[in-house]
Amino acid sequence: MRGTGKADVFVMLAHPVDHAKSPGDFNALFEERGLDSLMVPLTCKPADFETFWAGLTAAQNVRGMIISVPYKIAVFEKCSGAHDRAARVNSANSVRRLPDGSWYADNFDGVGFIDGLKAANRQIAGKRVLQVGAGGAGASIAYCLAEAGAAEIRLNDIDASRAAKLAELVGRAFPDCRIAVGPADPRGMDIAVNATPVGMHAGDPLPLDVTGLTPDMLVVDIIMEPAETALLQAAEKAGCQIQRGRPMMAFQIEAMADFFDVDRKDRGNG
Amino acid sequence: MRGTGKADVFVMLAHPVDHAKSPGDFNALFEERGLDSLMVPLTCKPADFETFWAGLTAAQNVRGMIISVPYKIAVFEKCSGAHDRAARVNSANSVRRLPDGSWYADNFDGVGFIDGLKAANRQIAGKRVLQVGAGGAGASIAYCLAEAGAAEIRLNDIDASRAAKLAELVGRAFPDCRIAVGPADPRGMDIAVNATPVGMHAGDPLPLDVTGLTPDMLVVDIIMEPAETALLQAAEKAGCQIQRGRPMMAFQIEAMADFFDVDRKDRGNG
Repeated sequence: MRGTGKADVFVMLAHPVDHAKSPGDFNALFEERGLDSLMVPLTCKPADFETFWAGLTAAQNVRGMIISVPYKIAVFEKCSGAHDRAARVNSANSVRRLPDGSWYADNFDGVGFIDGLKAANRQIAGKRVLQVGAGGAGASIAYCLAEAGAAEIRLNDIDASRAAKLAELVGRAFPDCRIAVGPADPRGMDIAVNATPVGMHAGDPLPLDVTGLTPDMLVVDIIMEPAETALLQAAEKAGCQIQRGRPMMAFQIEAMADFFDVDRKDRGNG
Repeated sequence: MRGTGKADVFVMLAHPVDHAKSPGDFNALFEERGLDSLMVPLTCKPADFETFWAGLTAAQNVRGMIISVPYKIAVFEKCSGAHDRAARVNSANSVRRLPDGSWYADNFDGVGFIDGLKAANRQIAGKRVLQVGAGGAGASIAYCLAEAGAAEIRLNDIDASRAAKLAELVGRAFPDCRIAVGPADPRGMDIAVNATPVGMHAGDPLPLDVTGLTPDMLVVDIIMEPAETALLQAAEKAGCQIQRGRPMMAFQIEAMADFFDVDRKDRGNG
């Protein structure tokens, strides 16, 4: 029976949380692996975040949390330590408990993105990438693209100064990658990435100029629902290869399961 | 899949929590009924209770909690309303969320005890009962025995003043029941109840004088582990009928599921 008094407890925090995919994905993973563990979706109002966080930190048997919008930055600031992937974007999407009861942050947005591309045999090293979206997930993805050897990244965001700041930081961390702010136009690029939420809702505009798409390009959308966004439909029509949003999540789940050490042998929640 | 982002979330709070049976029982019930709901065991140190409680109250999609040792009184004091069953013992073992976000308390210890006896066709009305143990669960059971029509209750507790206080309160609430403090001796009684934890551990003394047991008596132990306590073994040896602790929990689970309205139609955690 999964969910006894001895269960390892993990929390998925977002506001709202009902649309979140990771609780179901994790509970299915626990079920498959025969683990007595639960991933619990929880939500709180932004005004209550401090109170919520203190309370969940006091819950001794909560071993880890997955963090989503709008709490990634606030949670990062609560942590006593962090992997460089989280520190460079000031944003936690996963935290695990340290022996002293405090939290250690990591961020697997970019990791899941890259692992999803690799699993589909998409090459990143040496490629020129248009990336639209320099927000939370976008920042994580841009660093990981540069780290994976992208030759060039053209960054675009509705907030031009946010894009410029990210380009500067990524360029400083990975000087071999040419990264600069530019238009949302894929001409001259090998890969076009939508790292914005534009396309989640019917009637959304297209996130980038699809008239510039050519059949040699790969188009990636991080949106999971709908699985086939208007951008991906346009990309297929233009003869491009496409990559949907689901693999990014699936590979994040794998990375988070390792981070949480869900299969650890020394079980018992005390 | 049970445990998606839309799951109804319930918490079982105790310290420690790993021995608790209700999380596994509830998760099995959710599974059987095909509900996307989780019962999450959580624990916190007594010094952190205030912080924990504020945080879980801020978690908007936590719909209810089961409370066990040592938090039943502290939680009762946090509630904005309570059923008489909880109010008369100043103790909550279940709370549910009210529309304004505050908590309403109930206590099903005695209810489960009585329902378990009824399901086994044990009569309570008109019976004389020796009850050992006037603590949290004991108080709840004594009220419910009186309410169910017990003719007489002889109360015994290592803390004599606690037993005397409870006898006075129950007697005032149910004047038709003769209730008084007395020795842990079943002579002259129809039913003997152990409502103490004495018998959970190997080497524990017997909670009552088993030399007074006779074959016409019913002996009830609320301890669930071991299922067959030394008291129940002695009772069987004396030819008594016995009632184990498990049914009390099983019937509490049923009562709590109704209290939480786990099958409600207007699902969606917002």
